[in-house]
Amino acid sequence: MLTIANKTFNSRLFTGTGKFSSAALMEDALLASGSELVTVALKRVDMNDPQDDILRHLQHAHINLLPNTSGVRTAKEAVFAAQLAREALQTNWLKLEIHPDPKYLMPDPVETLRATEELVKMGFVVLPYIHADPVLCKRLEEVGAAAVMPLGSPIGSNKGLKTIDFLEIIIEQSKVPVVVDAGIGSPSDAAKALEIGADAVLVNTAIAVAGQPVQMATAFKMAVEAGRIAYEARLAKPLNTAIASSPLTAFLDETSMAKFSL
Amino acid sequence: MLTIANKTFNSRLFTGTGKFSSAALMEDALLASGSELVTVALKRVDMNDPQDDILRHLQHAHINLLPNTSGVRTAKEAVFAAQLAREALQTNWLKLEIHPDPKYLMPDPVETLRATEELVKMGFVVLPYIHADPVLCKRLEEVGAAAVMPLGSPIGSNKGLKTIDFLEIIIEQSKVPVVVDAGIGSPSDAAKALEIGADAVLVNTAIAVAGQPVQMATAFKMAVEAGRIAYEARLAKPLNTAIASSPLTAFLDETSMAKFSL
Amino acid sequence: MLTIANKTFNSRLFTGTGKFSSAALMEDALLASGSELVTVALKRVDMNDPQDDILRHLQHAHINLLPNTSGVRTAKEAVFAAQLAREALQTNWLKLEIHPDPKYLMPDPVETLRATEELVKMGFVVLPYIHADPVLCKRLEEVGAAAVMPLGSPIGSNKGLKTIDFLEIIIEQSKVPVVVDAGIGSPSDAAKALEIGADAVLVNTAIAVAGQPVQMATAFKMAVEAGRIAYEARLAKPLNTAIASSPLTAFLDETSMAKFSL
Amino acid sequence: MLTIANKTFNSRLFTGTGKFSSAALMEDALLASGSELVTVALKRVDMNDPQDDILRHLQHAHINLLPNTSGVRTAKEAVFAAQLAREALQTNWLKLEIHPDPKYLMPDPVETLRATEELVKMGFVVLPYIHADPVLCKRLEEVGAAAVMPLGSPIGSNKGLKTIDFLEIIIEQSKVPVVVDAGIGSPSDAAKALEIGADAVLVNTAIAVAGQPVQMATAFKMAVEAGRIAYEARLAKPLNTAIASSPLTAFLDETSMAKFSL
Repeated sequence: MLTIANKTFNSRLFTGTGKFSSAALMEDALLASGSELVTVALKRVDMNDPQDDILRHLQHAHINLLPNTSGVRTAKEAVFAAQLAREALQTNWLKLEIHPDPKYLMPDPVETLRATEELVKMGFVVLPYIHADPVLCKRLEEVGAAAVMPLGSPIGSNKGLKTIDFLEIIIEQSKVPVVVDAGIGSPSDAAKALEIGADAVLVNTAIAVAGQPVQMATAFKMAVEAGRIAYEARLAKPLNTAIASSPLTAFLDETSMAKFSL
Repeated sequence: MLTIANKTFNSRLFTGTGKFSSAALMEDALLASGSELVTVALKRVDMNDPQDDILRHLQHAHINLLPNTSGVRTAKEAVFAAQLAREALQTNWLKLEIHPDPKYLMPDPVETLRATEELVKMGFVVLPYIHADPVLCKRLEEVGAAAVMPLGSPIGSNKGLKTIDFLEIIIEQSKVPVVVDAGIGSPSDAAKALEIGADAVLVNTAIAVAGQPVQMATAFKMAVEAGRIAYEARLAKPLNTAIASSPLTAFLDETSMAKFSL
Repeated sequence: MLTIANKTFNSRLFTGTGKFSSAALMEDALLASGSELVTVALKRVDMNDPQDDILRHLQHAHINLLPNTSGVRTAKEAVFAAQLAREALQTNWLKLEIHPDPKYLMPDPVETLRATEELVKMGFVVLPYIHADPVLCKRLEEVGAAAVMPLGSPIGSNKGLKTIDFLEIIIEQSKVPVVVDAGIGSPSDAAKALEIGADAVLVNTAIAVAGQPVQMATAFKMAVEAGRIAYEARLAKPLNTAIASSPLTAFLDETSMAKFSL
Repeated sequence: MLTIANKTFNSRLFTGTGKFSSAALMEDALLASGSELVTVALKRVDMNDPQDDILRHLQHAHINLLPNTSGVRTAKEAVFAAQLAREALQTNWLKLEIHPDPKYLMPDPVETLRATEELVKMGFVVLPYIHADPVLCKRLEEVGAAAVMPLGSPIGSNKGLKTIDFLEIIIEQSKVPVVVDAGIGSPSDAAKALEIGADAVLVNTAIAVAGQPVQMATAFKMAVEAGRIAYEARLAKPLNTAIASSPLTAFLDETSMAKFSL
């Protein structure tokens, strides 16, 4: 079972709320995913309306909200957004996203570290979204990040685990949970992340824009579970020489072949 | 539901019997996998002993045997081995493997085509194991192969879908089921094969040599199901520009920031 | 120096004549490439006209023509085309291409083997274009192919060495020169092929459709030479742990730091 | 021609001095490489000895020294080391390396940004070695870095351009030269970096530990030049459908085949 900041999760699949064609479809997909941690952008929530449409669709006992700061460009903006989020959504959990770049939405390492340090002091449970940078991950851990969320590839690109060489180093070194976020484009990508030892993945785009989001959410749920089981059951390493599953045989001697002469 | 030669399968995970540390462990793993088609090398079966150990562990209603010709080097040897197998195991299904190369066990395209043609005429249901060669797959289909089994990477290498560019062409063009065989090293590899439209996968080494084969078999079962669901639910394509899951926001105006002055 | 069928080559870059915007540009690019073996499709040559435009631009002492059978679909057609080519171009060298598939132009392994065997008996120097199939390469060698030409990826796709795992096996096992043909999209791809031990590469599309074909031909020339030198000078293997180019130092003691107090 | 901080370079291959089996061999290799910018670790230089062995072998008119701070773990140590280097080697150029992690030697983004800002103010020409982090590259540019040196893969790993998806973003966005540093394991890797638009590469391990370092240096020189020419001559993009280099032909009609009846 996965534990982050004293909260335990049965599901290692975290999800998001963007890009669904309707809030009802989003709800169905998130329920199918089994996800217990769902990130929501502050902007999408009408904080003055207790009946806000998105929030209403997320009111399930097993779903924990993870507000994110998508859209902020500096630590200062992030801290402000975090406070708004805590007040509005009544949770001190936060997915910290600081991305000054409007095209690729790559995260800012320096502002993210600064904001994490500040927000931890303010009592937030901070899960920072970052590049797959092993040293940055250690530094975030040192200032109190509850988990680290390195990217697999650019957000929404569906390109998969392009950073796998660095994710492996991060997983080897991290003392807090590692959640692979961004770029996971298919259930096989998600399974792979778990197989190499990631503690969880966060998936949004690949579910939301699939032909059938609810079924795709189910597929991700199963793939994540499969990946985790495989990690625990210990995969064998790739080899450079083939080893036959069925060993070569010498059973075909001339005598017996004669019997079935062709 | 997958159909090969008028037989339907609920499971798209085919398995093998090699390399398990015991026949009992093999049985447990194969049951966990849900596999309904299990390949067995002729040599491993003591054909004079109805109580042969391996066969005894495969006696389950949902398990169909798929004898293979592992070890043969020519079409002639393959045809002979097929006849032995049919007599011994009372099935006309056959996984045709002809690999003259003892190091990498790569299949022989010419002998395989020749043997397939002959064996089909003799009433066999032939599933040939071959290189991921799109033209060869079409020719095997033309001479009556019930399915084609292109390799992902060398047998037992656990290197995954190294031939994916060619598997995609094969899947696009094939009128018979495509079963990716050899090289699948992890559940994520298996899921990927199904996601791109393969009809099934055959996995042996990665299950048999895992730290815990039974759990690994479960992981493969789930991953294969996840991959198939994802294929049917239609994955989105990779993109070259990031698209935020949560769109950029303009909610942080100066006025509201003043309220939470830091 | 590379030797094929008793002919020696200074250049390991073979080229083609298709897709250039003019014959003059083709000539300039081929001269820049330093290529000594240039393949030409039979159809492109007007065999009744000794002043055929393409041929006229290939009349250089160091350029050997390599007629190819592009467009044929069977061994029979290939043998016929080979005879036409020998008569028209006065050479018994032949790049054998048999591809029944009009979309991906993948080669036919069985017809190619059959035609090779026949053509060798008829006195041709046969260089068959084939899938990167290690067993097929051995069989072509056994029937007398002067070299084997496995593909890197589909013709004209510029996708590079997608078959590298199999090319490595082919190179390890082959007793005739291995020429990587098709799919090489950049000088770095060409260099890589030579680095892993390929004897030569054949490049056409990537030069012909470049922004500046003559300069691109020069780049390929240099890259091929670089790759060969690297192969001979023996590259080190990839490692899984970093090893500093400059070892860690302990030169920063407190005393000396005091001197430059910051 | 490449310009960094008003200095122009004919060669886009930067090199290092570590791991050579002798200083004389190093000198021969660096001369063969044509490199005009050679990085040297402070520790390797005996600053009290004007006849220090390494330095003596680098005294060539076309070679500029680029002291590096390998071994430092913080911005403070880096600034101190930089001052030592400037005094000892009489250059204000600096390759800034800050890597607290002794196993993978991954760079620290936060300390590197801090040190860059400080060192620029102190008049240094700073080339920081960093993770392939697009946002960090922009921030280093903003504080005055003369170039950015993102890594291809961990130092000394010879794994090549594992970060290529991010290098492409960095190259697209950067206003200062981009020098790919670390992980380049072969001439083809170096060529590839130049092909995608990197301004230069820094190579050390792959030359120093090659079977024949001098020849390997030559291979890298040629590959870097080839990659740059290819970049300028504009490569075509990969395609998903094959396009024959030699178009399909219809030249084989029955009449003409009759003539060569087989």
